[in-house]
Amino acid sequence: MSRYDTPTLLRQLPLFSALSEEEIQRVSAATAQLRVSSGARLFSRGDPCNGFHVVIKGRVKLLLETSDGAEKVMEICGPGQSFGEAVMFLQKPYFFAAEALEASLLLHIGRGAVMNEIDNNPEFARQMLAALSKRLHQLVCDLEAFTLRDGTQRVAAYLLQERGEGERSGSFEIRLPVSKGVLASKLNITREHFSRILNELSNAGLVHVQGPVIRVLDAVKLRQHVGVG
Amino acid sequence: MSRYDTPTLLRQLPLFSALSEEEIQRVSAATAQLRVSSGARLFSRGDPCNGFHVVIKGRVKLLLETSDGAEKVMEICGPGQSFGEAVMFLQKPYFFAAEALEASLLLHIGRGAVMNEIDNNPEFARQMLAALSKRLHQLVCDLEAFTLRDGTQRVAAYLLQERGEGERSGSFEIRLPVSKGVLASKLNITREHFSRILNELSNAGLVHVQGPVIRVLDAVKLRQHVGVG
Repeated sequence: MSRYDTPTLLRQLPLFSALSEEEIQRVSAATAQLRVSSGARLFSRGDPCNGFHVVIKGRVKLLLETSDGAEKVMEICGPGQSFGEAVMFLQKPYFFAAEALEASLLLHIGRGAVMNEIDNNPEFARQMLAALSKRLHQLVCDLEAFTLRDGTQRVAAYLLQERGEGERSGSFEIRLPVSKGVLASKLNITREHFSRILNELSNAGLVHVQGPVIRVLDAVKLRQHVGVG
Repeated sequence: MSRYDTPTLLRQLPLFSALSEEEIQRVSAATAQLRVSSGARLFSRGDPCNGFHVVIKGRVKLLLETSDGAEKVMEICGPGQSFGEAVMFLQKPYFFAAEALEASLLLHIGRGAVMNEIDNNPEFARQMLAALSKRLHQLVCDLEAFTLRDGTQRVAAYLLQERGEGERSGSFEIRLPVSKGVLASKLNITREHFSRILNELSNAGLVHVQGPVIRVLDAVKLRQHVGVG
């Protein structure tokens, strides 16, 4: 990966769109660029949190881990997505871990600079509030899916949400952005269960699977089949 | 319930502790007191959201509902707790429903007034950010419990967290604040499964159950039995 200028990267992120040039320069001074290789761990549960991360290139998984070694993928963050804001505001240690799924470039933005701009720029405060609220909404959707939907409904909902905006019907193709194991964990099913569901949907003539490429043959029929909006 | 003065109620809430007397008066002008009877619905999924709620007295359940009528208790909010901030900041319709579990007194604080104070008072913006972050943390804990812990572990974790702060060992008694059905839904188990778990813990000599009163006989043994922190 070539080198990037930190202010340029910050200016491109919607979260920082309310900042003036002077403010961008101040935040930039508290921002570190992190280049990590595939599989690298960014932090573990219990590590101190001194800021938050934004993914510029690549992909990072956020992991929940129990003391007996069980783990679950909580979130997969791609370019433009941020994580760790809530932990930073709580001033607590991390309660999840983060690992790069591929070679990635991230920004780490220091807590002090963020708090300083919140105090100086109400519009930036609003944007941080909106970002946290969006994240909260997504978590509630996940909670809802895990508790009120079965595995097949969760897989179908994932496929349907991955299609292009506006395409409510017809056929479309998606390429899974991460391995089936990681995606299965995110959807809270086993790798085997995930494969079984894809087989069932394939036998029902709803999808066609070729490696990481999945073609949904009829979005309307898939929605009807599993009863998800 | 007797009448309360809105500014007095607002002044007692930690969320508004950073506001000056003038600011309290402004927020108060945009605040409505709601007295609701047991079972009353505050709002449904899809209703417009023009502010957020704080519970002053009583208890409110937040519900996730699917189109086919399945529902799950997402949260039980008691005195001092607020809900709906994230929906308010997102400027979306409610994605959950709220129903009073008992006769309750609530405040509804209008969006305009909140946004106004965020623009005027960075400390208030920080407190809203901290409140949202705390809520996000709780949701992640729920997600972790549902996906990585079994029903018995979830019940034990609930009992252990209900004891007084600092009591890490010994025996203690709690009175369930809501019906076993509501609590079971919150813990994502059926009412029957919840009773079965209490029976098992009782047979193992770890708890003593008498109606809504549960005595944990030895907190350390209970923790060890289920393997939760």
